[in-house]
Amino acid sequence: MDISEDELLAAIRRVLSVSDPAIIVAVGDDAAVVRPGGGDLVLTTDAVVEGVHVDRATATAREIGYKAVAVTVSDAAAVAASPRFALSSLTLSPEVDAAWTMELFGGMREACDEFAMSLVGGNVSSGPVLSVTVMVTGEVAAGRAISRAGAEAGDLVTLTGSLGGSAAGLRLAREVVHGREVTDEVRDAIRRHQRPTPRVGEAQVLARHGATAMIDVSDGLVIDLTRLCEASDVGVRLDLGRIPAHPASAEGEALGGGEDYELIATMPSDAAASDAAAELREVFGVPLSVIGRITDSGRESVDEAGASRPLERLGWDHFG
Amino acid sequence: MDISEDELLAAIRRVLSVSDPAIIVAVGDDAAVVRPGGGDLVLTTDAVVEGVHVDRATATAREIGYKAVAVTVSDAAAVAASPRFALSSLTLSPEVDAAWTMELFGGMREACDEFAMSLVGGNVSSGPVLSVTVMVTGEVAAGRAISRAGAEAGDLVTLTGSLGGSAAGLRLAREVVHGREVTDEVRDAIRRHQRPTPRVGEAQVLARHGATAMIDVSDGLVIDLTRLCEASDVGVRLDLGRIPAHPASAEGEALGGGEDYELIATMPSDAAASDAAAELREVFGVPLSVIGRITDSGRESVDEAGASRPLERLGWDHFG
Repeated sequence: MDISEDELLAAIRRVLSVSDPAIIVAVGDDAAVVRPGGGDLVLTTDAVVEGVHVDRATATAREIGYKAVAVTVSDAAAVAASPRFALSSLTLSPEVDAAWTMELFGGMREACDEFAMSLVGGNVSSGPVLSVTVMVTGEVAAGRAISRAGAEAGDLVTLTGSLGGSAAGLRLAREVVHGREVTDEVRDAIRRHQRPTPRVGEAQVLARHGATAMIDVSDGLVIDLTRLCEASDVGVRLDLGRIPAHPASAEGEALGGGEDYELIATMPSDAAASDAAAELREVFGVPLSVIGRITDSGRESVDEAGASRPLERLGWDHFG
Repeated sequence: MDISEDELLAAIRRVLSVSDPAIIVAVGDDAAVVRPGGGDLVLTTDAVVEGVHVDRATATAREIGYKAVAVTVSDAAAVAASPRFALSSLTLSPEVDAAWTMELFGGMREACDEFAMSLVGGNVSSGPVLSVTVMVTGEVAAGRAISRAGAEAGDLVTLTGSLGGSAAGLRLAREVVHGREVTDEVRDAIRRHQRPTPRVGEAQVLARHGATAMIDVSDGLVIDLTRLCEASDVGVRLDLGRIPAHPASAEGEALGGGEDYELIATMPSDAAASDAAAELREVFGVPLSVIGRITDSGRESVDEAGASRPLERLGWDHFG
């Protein structure tokens, strides 16, 4: 690092200074002290590690900071919470300097502003490999959080937006470097990969219309849907022909690509699903697709010809 | 890793299962949901990175897990909060296996039990270098947090316990490997390094007796006292002859060693300091020493011969 730790911390405090009346003790003290808004407290964390989740050769510091916050917010959204405060814990490698680090904070600040949150503190350390860990707190009315565990046989499986855009964006960003034409579809896919949009408001609409369980699609539809079924102790019949694939996605990217941060929500009735779909379309311009049904047991997929086969785990396992 | 991510997460859930009625949605969902106890919410995070803060050759997985939680709790203690919930975010390198990881969680669980907290969630990722990031939430009565920024000229500078034990312990642990005799002093110093004790209850006593500012000694007395003075916009006159050095510490380790996790508290009067000292001695068996006085400006040290010189920054800077 080209400046001292205390100089860096002072610079970070300048980037992060916000006037949020709920912040009692802000960035720069031993701990942040905030005034909670009531309701239940939601806590979640996610991390990006260079060489595993992120590559400084293809993503800017600002994009890395933005995405680190956005993907963590997605976990808070998936229990129907409103994100409120964030902490970051950085390990800075010798290859990054103060200017790069301030751009990283700029990206985190930008995401926090976008999701109406405040970055209230954190930790900075040196180390051999860059990593950015973000922790997010959220608020939800007491007892109103939606976990993965409430799905019941007969519920409809619904999905916001489309899948495969992020995987396509990662692939296309590399192809663009080698001269591929940048169409609107390509641009949208790359944006989905670099600046994912957590479905914060959408989750609250789904919760209000009676969602019984929710999970965000971070590792891929098949993996995350399997996790929801395991947590709820139910089966599922997934209708492959109804899965909305991003127009730029290739074979397999919608089912297994991951990092789309759409929501899977199980809805208790056709009416609940269609009412939620109408509100999501009107308020957010986001489609809600019915992609299957919860069953008592067994996880299977059905293709457009009606052929059924076990739902395989096509997604990405961090240790795979 | 020798098992899959989902197998590891299932094993972690077994180690962490606690029956805490305030946990609404526990480990294993997108986010943890907890019921706060009222008052202000305290948020803090700290990280240990292999090769920087910790070495697997000299510390066990259990010690690393324990210390990662303890040092983060110390930051919550330093604002006079009661720690309540923790999240962990791990990056696991190829050198660690599932058994090592479960021991790490065992150490985190042990520390959480010791400080009456619950580990409610987190994140596990693979990466080239082991790191353990812990986030702690705490509770403090509304408006009662003690920041670094409240010290005023005339306040006494007080310190819990003794300094230099952790630095001595790090040094002595290596010497013991090479045949040094293990006396009680040596054993205590090594323990201070490997299993530091955050001053949670002590901080609350100091707050109740009117502490105007507090900070924990993580980077070293001189650095952390300087930070308190900068945040409060005051000076200090540090009495070098009254700094309680750990009996096993060597020259310089008490002033600059760091990682002792004692508290520096500024007290508004002699009576407040001596009342707090009496209660700390009686309840915790912990001494409180008066080591200096806050002044309007200028930071200086005075040695036992009465010679004054500028308070130098003898501690350890992460980017130094």
